[in-house]
Amino acid sequence: MHHFFFFAAPDNIQENTVTLTDEDFRHCIQVLRKNIGDEIDITDGRGKIITAVIETIDKNSCDCRIVQAAFQEKKDIPEILLTFGMLKSSALENLVRDTVALGVTELVPLLMKHSVKPKFNAERLHRIAIESVKQSGNCYCPIIRKPQKFSDWIVSLDRESVKLIADQAASRKISDMYWSTEIKKPIIVLIGPEGGFHPGEMNMAVENGFIPVNISPYRLRSELAAVVAVSALLNRGIDE
Amino acid sequence: MHHFFFFAAPDNIQENTVTLTDEDFRHCIQVLRKNIGDEIDITDGRGKIITAVIETIDKNSCDCRIVQAAFQEKKDIPEILLTFGMLKSSALENLVRDTVALGVTELVPLLMKHSVKPKFNAERLHRIAIESVKQSGNCYCPIIRKPQKFSDWIVSLDRESVKLIADQAASRKISDMYWSTEIKKPIIVLIGPEGGFHPGEMNMAVENGFIPVNISPYRLRSELAAVVAVSALLNRGIDE
Repeated sequence: MHHFFFFAAPDNIQENTVTLTDEDFRHCIQVLRKNIGDEIDITDGRGKIITAVIETIDKNSCDCRIVQAAFQEKKDIPEILLTFGMLKSSALENLVRDTVALGVTELVPLLMKHSVKPKFNAERLHRIAIESVKQSGNCYCPIIRKPQKFSDWIVSLDRESVKLIADQAASRKISDMYWSTEIKKPIIVLIGPEGGFHPGEMNMAVENGFIPVNISPYRLRSELAAVVAVSALLNRGIDE
Repeated sequence: MHHFFFFAAPDNIQENTVTLTDEDFRHCIQVLRKNIGDEIDITDGRGKIITAVIETIDKNSCDCRIVQAAFQEKKDIPEILLTFGMLKSSALENLVRDTVALGVTELVPLLMKHSVKPKFNAERLHRIAIESVKQSGNCYCPIIRKPQKFSDWIVSLDRESVKLIADQAASRKISDMYWSTEIKKPIIVLIGPEGGFHPGEMNMAVENGFIPVNISPYRLRSELAAVVAVSALLNRGIDE
């Protein structure tokens, strides 16, 4: 298990060489003071784990010669597409950091009646996701979509997926559902914004195949509800 | 469902009157600018929900006449005693806030080989717990113990309880265990400190009846691991 590694975008990975840039360059060279000849570990956020030796250091980047490259198979956990009413920045950042560490596949913020006005800094969220990938040892960085309009998004979904909506008024729990070992499709999880779902949104979700599930008897902040729902799905039993 | 209420320690609740003091007094009178004659909701953190009318306002407290008192039965969720290697303040505060909202019964920080030096502000943690009680609508405030020495604590436990230790190397999951509807005893959950368990501690836990369980394929920060474990327990299936 690697306890620390750097990130390089796939474009910066050649056959024999990896180039570190931006935050990862600065952290490696200026913070950790790595030097020519030092060996480091690098991931591309898509499962690749590279061991490389620093060969040249420029002002804003460094080139590393690949010594070894391995591939981390995806863990045998369900594909989870997590969607949620758009949150204020700090809550959104916590949600991204925590759910990336848990291994979600895709994150979709939604513009809803009660969600906050979007301040969506894609670059910053990507950095937080990469940090979480590196910290958790999950070598797969999820896709973080730009905020989507709820009413457009909900009608665009694969009708075959398992779709869940977190609802404090629901009586059904995730463990009450039938989970076949054959289910390989992504599970889509919908979490309301801080202000809660508008009744029309809840109806629209149910009309589009979402099953209301109760994940806690108490009222949870949205980012905590997201973590609870993902945790419950990762730890659910499989019906034989 | 109450969307906001105040806290009064049981000592401040008489037969017909409740006295608000400290933070709750300031929030009610100075921030929300409630006045004589206004009706407010109050909890004692032990399941009591009181509706009262403000009668007199002093400089540091206000007295409220009880109009109605009700009792929130404990929700039908397992009693969870959550223990964890002592964390740095911000992580500890997040852990308290999140797990109180989820309804844990008791929190025990432990002094372990790899845990940080304790800066334990009981007063501040109690305030965070009360805030979380009020926000989540969980009218039961858990007990937060002072940090205990791991080796003393582990030998002091009821041998009959279900005891789980989060271990990334374990293959058994919470959903692989047999959960009878008859289990009414608290479930004790042990989460390692940021630096991980010392091998001797892991052995000692297992010798004292702890079952290693895997709650995530990835490495989680301690406070996130605590939330994941509690979420998995709240959402586990019951074997008939």
